[in-house]
Amino acid sequence: MGKMTQVSPLAPAVFPELPVIDGVRFATAKAGIKNNDRTDVMLALLAPGTTVAGVFTRSKTRAAPVLDCQAKIGGASEAGAAILVNAGNANAFTGKNGVASVDAITSAVAAACDVPQNRVFTSSTGVIGEPLPHERITAAVSGLAGNLRADGIADAAKAIMTTDTFAKGAFAQIDIDGQAISIAGIAKGSGMIAPDMATMLVYLFTDAQVDQDTLQELLSTSADTTFNCITVDSDTSTSDSVIMAATGASGKNVTGHPDFAKATHGVMLDLAHQVVRDGEGATKFVEVVVTGAASHADAKTHAMAIANSPLVKTAIAGEDPNWGRVVMAVGKSGAEADRDRLSIRFGDVAVAKDGYRSPEYSESAAAAHMKGENIVIGVDLGLGDNTATVWTCDLTHGYISINADYRS
Amino acid sequence: MGKMTQVSPLAPAVFPELPVIDGVRFATAKAGIKNNDRTDVMLALLAPGTTVAGVFTRSKTRAAPVLDCQAKIGGASEAGAAILVNAGNANAFTGKNGVASVDAITSAVAAACDVPQNRVFTSSTGVIGEPLPHERITAAVSGLAGNLRADGIADAAKAIMTTDTFAKGAFAQIDIDGQAISIAGIAKGSGMIAPDMATMLVYLFTDAQVDQDTLQELLSTSADTTFNCITVDSDTSTSDSVIMAATGASGKNVTGHPDFAKATHGVMLDLAHQVVRDGEGATKFVEVVVTGAASHADAKTHAMAIANSPLVKTAIAGEDPNWGRVVMAVGKSGAEADRDRLSIRFGDVAVAKDGYRSPEYSESAAAAHMKGENIVIGVDLGLGDNTATVWTCDLTHGYISINADYRS
Repeated sequence: MGKMTQVSPLAPAVFPELPVIDGVRFATAKAGIKNNDRTDVMLALLAPGTTVAGVFTRSKTRAAPVLDCQAKIGGASEAGAAILVNAGNANAFTGKNGVASVDAITSAVAAACDVPQNRVFTSSTGVIGEPLPHERITAAVSGLAGNLRADGIADAAKAIMTTDTFAKGAFAQIDIDGQAISIAGIAKGSGMIAPDMATMLVYLFTDAQVDQDTLQELLSTSADTTFNCITVDSDTSTSDSVIMAATGASGKNVTGHPDFAKATHGVMLDLAHQVVRDGEGATKFVEVVVTGAASHADAKTHAMAIANSPLVKTAIAGEDPNWGRVVMAVGKSGAEADRDRLSIRFGDVAVAKDGYRSPEYSESAAAAHMKGENIVIGVDLGLGDNTATVWTCDLTHGYISINADYRS
Repeated sequence: MGKMTQVSPLAPAVFPELPVIDGVRFATAKAGIKNNDRTDVMLALLAPGTTVAGVFTRSKTRAAPVLDCQAKIGGASEAGAAILVNAGNANAFTGKNGVASVDAITSAVAAACDVPQNRVFTSSTGVIGEPLPHERITAAVSGLAGNLRADGIADAAKAIMTTDTFAKGAFAQIDIDGQAISIAGIAKGSGMIAPDMATMLVYLFTDAQVDQDTLQELLSTSADTTFNCITVDSDTSTSDSVIMAATGASGKNVTGHPDFAKATHGVMLDLAHQVVRDGEGATKFVEVVVTGAASHADAKTHAMAIANSPLVKTAIAGEDPNWGRVVMAVGKSGAEADRDRLSIRFGDVAVAKDGYRSPEYSESAAAAHMKGENIVIGVDLGLGDNTATVWTCDLTHGYISINADYRS
């Protein structure tokens, strides 16, 4: 979505120095999917033995590459594998032509990289409904295969960007029983962000050995509290995909090790936050923390209702501690709430308590919090002990500018 | 929500000449709830024998006056009744003080108008979470009671406005068995519009005789296809109320008469459309028609997902026939859809058919439709014969301007 604009004010200062992950090599190319002034295809080649897990959008109109990936995830891991991603065209709502494009691309990659076609995963991101000029990608495949580099992940992060204003990467390095293990991930996403089961495009790599089922379980569970807890505009993409590959090149089997799960979750959360920080038009990073809910589902429903409310998001853009709009969002969410037990805070400033304006409420203190770049909205429902935290950004003129005058 | 701006470009040319409804008189006053430069309170006094029906928001944080009305609707009709509405403060999330305010106001109106307190209905609209200065209203009550006029409905329409840029009225005059029957209604609403069971503030009056149960059934049923089918910003108000009063002054009992039901529905739909036409920042009036759904609920879910999608609404603002965003909205709605049976039109221009860009698609014809003031998005799911139609407006810089720098 949206045309390129200046770098988000919420962007990290620098792209991190991602570690090389043994067993993965990357290449990028200018295939000219939309134009020729930037790289728009990336190939990642994974060593034999790599396990691959994925979570994907639940959209009923999901794209051909997503359906293809979903059919392939969970396959045998003895052979190598490859991931090919293009930006500029989502290959979504492209009917039989879309399926044929996926087949042409995965077939070309399989031949060039000597991996089985059912181990070639593709993603496409960009405009919906336009036929994908896949011949521009297949023409680039042998060049990609001939230029693979172990230290190419930063270039890969750039090649998958669409309206992103900065490339997104995160990593963790941990020690498990004396063995160094690395996890590195890249992501793209800026608009059409309201992941459901998965999100945007995210690729995670580790040199740990993890069996397929464990890797899938870890990825799915971690997505629930990271990518599935962010929203920019409540609109869910047709292409959301998170793929994690464990090459096993370290020789260390970490299946079931809590430190590995924790580190993976941390990398995913870092990337999820970076997507919000690159939300179209964003000027504020917003954390919504709901506590005291009757169930976890209720907590999440309330948190998302607040995070997706245009009136809450515009109030934040205006640095206005308009907590009445938070009351409204809780009221409309449909989840259980008791008006007279509701308490609300902005940062550490109590604004409402037990269904009424807080006796210690200070408009100036609340306003001071709203002027910051990081906003926290806390809501306690007073009904139970379930919680949820989600992240979003504000809704600004920038979002309108980006999305009201853009197409293909 | 929002500060006053220039009149919506979608406003009707003039306020209609509403007929006098025998059995109802109106008065308005400047009570100074927010400021003193306009009328902000209206009183409607209803003759003995009037039946009163209402539908109200399902918000879990609904306001004190809404709860009070809900408890009173359905009461005895031998006595007269009264409706008092204030703008400038919603008396929502005001705890026990809010309940006390409703009691003080309804008590004062009952005494001044000689009607039972349990037949005095109040609504409050404006900022949420601020205590209502009800003493300013009770001080105005005797003046209101002394200035009731049968032809005061247009002034009443003005007094209930908040950020509305124009007053909203509609009427129908029909002949039933040789008896002239009139229906007149007024509404307010501009932002925080996503009614659920009811909406905004709407007051309907008729001189027909209708028994209580029939009136309630008619109002509820008609709300489902009028006010419950509009959305400006997906945010549901804490104060939504639709109240209909049948004075019976014509002497004609129309209970169950299809012409009366049809005329009532027409007045409600007219008012609902006017609310959308005054949507904050609106420059386009948008009708979303979903056909071919497996169920009516599915049709409505898809239609609302399209109507509430920020990406669809910004595309309309940009006059961009970006039908990929319609595909996205259908995909994310959660209701049943089959990508490969989906067809989409903008106005009469087929843009997608059976899951692919329409062979007769003309970008210039689609773009021409988008340049108009009235936009139609048609989606056929190809799954059944259920339909739903909803109405919304576009999402523009005007919405951001109005809502990012407003409070109390």
